[in-house]
Amino acid sequence: MAPVLALVGATGAVGGVMIDIMNNRPAFPWGEVRLIASARSAGKKMTVRGQELTVVEISPEAFDGVDVAMFDVPDEISARWAPIAAERGAVAVDNSGAFRMDADVPLVVPEVNLDKVAERPRGIISNPNCTTLSMMAAVGALHRKFQLTELVVASYQAASGAGQGGIDRLYAELEAVAGKHVGNRAGDVAEALEAAGLPAADSPFPAPLAMNVVPWAGSLKEDGWASEELKVRNEARKIMGIPDLKVSATCVRVPVVTTHSLAVHATFANPVTVAQAHEVFDAQPSVVLVDDPANLKFPTPADVVGGDPTYVGRVRQALDFPNTLDFFVCGDNLRKGAALNTYEIAEALIG
Amino acid sequence: MAPVLALVGATGAVGGVMIDIMNNRPAFPWGEVRLIASARSAGKKMTVRGQELTVVEISPEAFDGVDVAMFDVPDEISARWAPIAAERGAVAVDNSGAFRMDADVPLVVPEVNLDKVAERPRGIISNPNCTTLSMMAAVGALHRKFQLTELVVASYQAASGAGQGGIDRLYAELEAVAGKHVGNRAGDVAEALEAAGLPAADSPFPAPLAMNVVPWAGSLKEDGWASEELKVRNEARKIMGIPDLKVSATCVRVPVVTTHSLAVHATFANPVTVAQAHEVFDAQPSVVLVDDPANLKFPTPADVVGGDPTYVGRVRQALDFPNTLDFFVCGDNLRKGAALNTYEIAEALIG
Repeated sequence: MAPVLALVGATGAVGGVMIDIMNNRPAFPWGEVRLIASARSAGKKMTVRGQELTVVEISPEAFDGVDVAMFDVPDEISARWAPIAAERGAVAVDNSGAFRMDADVPLVVPEVNLDKVAERPRGIISNPNCTTLSMMAAVGALHRKFQLTELVVASYQAASGAGQGGIDRLYAELEAVAGKHVGNRAGDVAEALEAAGLPAADSPFPAPLAMNVVPWAGSLKEDGWASEELKVRNEARKIMGIPDLKVSATCVRVPVVTTHSLAVHATFANPVTVAQAHEVFDAQPSVVLVDDPANLKFPTPADVVGGDPTYVGRVRQALDFPNTLDFFVCGDNLRKGAALNTYEIAEALIG
Repeated sequence: MAPVLALVGATGAVGGVMIDIMNNRPAFPWGEVRLIASARSAGKKMTVRGQELTVVEISPEAFDGVDVAMFDVPDEISARWAPIAAERGAVAVDNSGAFRMDADVPLVVPEVNLDKVAERPRGIISNPNCTTLSMMAAVGALHRKFQLTELVVASYQAASGAGQGGIDRLYAELEAVAGKHVGNRAGDVAEALEAAGLPAADSPFPAPLAMNVVPWAGSLKEDGWASEELKVRNEARKIMGIPDLKVSATCVRVPVVTTHSLAVHATFANPVTVAQAHEVFDAQPSVVLVDDPANLKFPTPADVVGGDPTYVGRVRQALDFPNTLDFFVCGDNLRKGAALNTYEIAEALIG
């Protein structure tokens, strides 16, 4: 019998991308798709591969007969319901932060550590944070060949990393400042937003995002670090199996709707040239190399959004650091950074 | 007799900021200000400290009697005219790239190496590139105390770094995409721009900048490096007098009108704590420390634009790198990054 796939959080921002991915997948091995959401969204109709499905309310029984349950919901919902799905016999593939650092839960990027899906004592597999994921296919491929020892990363993170509320806020802010030619005097952006009925208190971001960048993502952790920056460090170590990997990350939100970019400074145990790195990227099916600066070709978020691969460019050998490459990576944070990676894990589980 | 100051490039974007700075300086030691520009702009009237001045056309004679001539013009204009100004007896303070790496031309940031203005065999002093300058007051202060050895930098550079054409283009692009909710599909931004009469060929940027980031600034140099990235490296070495400083920079344009930001990963010969770094920043008059993440306080370009100081925040001790700090810097690229630093040098020369 063909396996049953559940999607928990079907009506959210990532849920919508997940349905888009399912609709466009060349092969579809699932016998049944079950859309699950909160009571508020239950009863909603959504179309998956030409079939109109009715969203059902989350309950223990909703997981009966499910082989794989994908969770795209906030941490606390996953923390409560993923173990229940597992008890009912499903493998839970969770895109929240609830289980990522749990020693009994594998944290999986199929291109890097698909073998880890087999060890899942809790019946749960975690999907990495979108910022980590946006670079992992590229960095993981280099690591396999040259053995990664250090990562210094600065992010250019999209508004949609903060969910539908982040997308809506950025669009509203852009509309409020457009044509006003503000931005050359302190406070002008904030004033334009207030005047447009967009008070700072209503924003998911701690500062205006239109015509601005905001060096903050997540919540405050020890010693001034933002949770997103520690996730990049801890998840990169776990995914690649390098417990002593040296990592410094600075996470910055930029006024881009979708696609996270990262400036990566990566040091390896072994010597590596630009030509060798190009070879590695060319050989990795999920990576697209766009690296021709003589013709002004490099990845930008606008070129990447809506696509599945990780785009890499600006590959340079560091001039002063041995065995080190500098490069720029762009990945759609809603696709490979969230829905796609989760779906790839789900497919691998039954393949 | 009170000294005579010339401003070459009075009618450009940086020239305008320079006049604003002169108008708002508490003391003004100059007996005469002479505004100089190309033939096209000669005859224009501009007001400096309440006095209407007429812009004069550049010529050798225009520099007669001038003590200090500030140049805010393209490289090739400076290359031609700064030596002529020097011949006529003026000290040329040049904000172009023409002389920065000339061994006989000091490259000066007053907070860091003001002593260097005395050695000027060519009669020319250079002002650093705006990206280098945006971090130099902060990085230089740390270097004095802890001895800098390595810098890994990622920039978030404003459109005005590309001059008035860059500012105009960003405003036009923002207006073209506002309210259209484009940005979630590849090519949509470019299409919206085309539809609004903003073809890519007319842009000073190699890709759309609205709702996008572009990992490129300057021209192509050897091995895939952009000129702006090499300037950060070579100028930082020269200004701080550390010929073997290890530097990797990735320069990225963001849809911000004015103020460059940098994510800095700085390694020192000596141990350094966050508290010690805060002390150094507090003691540096041209640096403003905004570092209270518990209350979501950190510098963003919108808070900084139009101001003179360099703003620093997000100071963290690197978790895995000894003697290393990660922090975020914002500086108005038209003020400290260009006009202000040039004017400070001019003032120091007569003070």
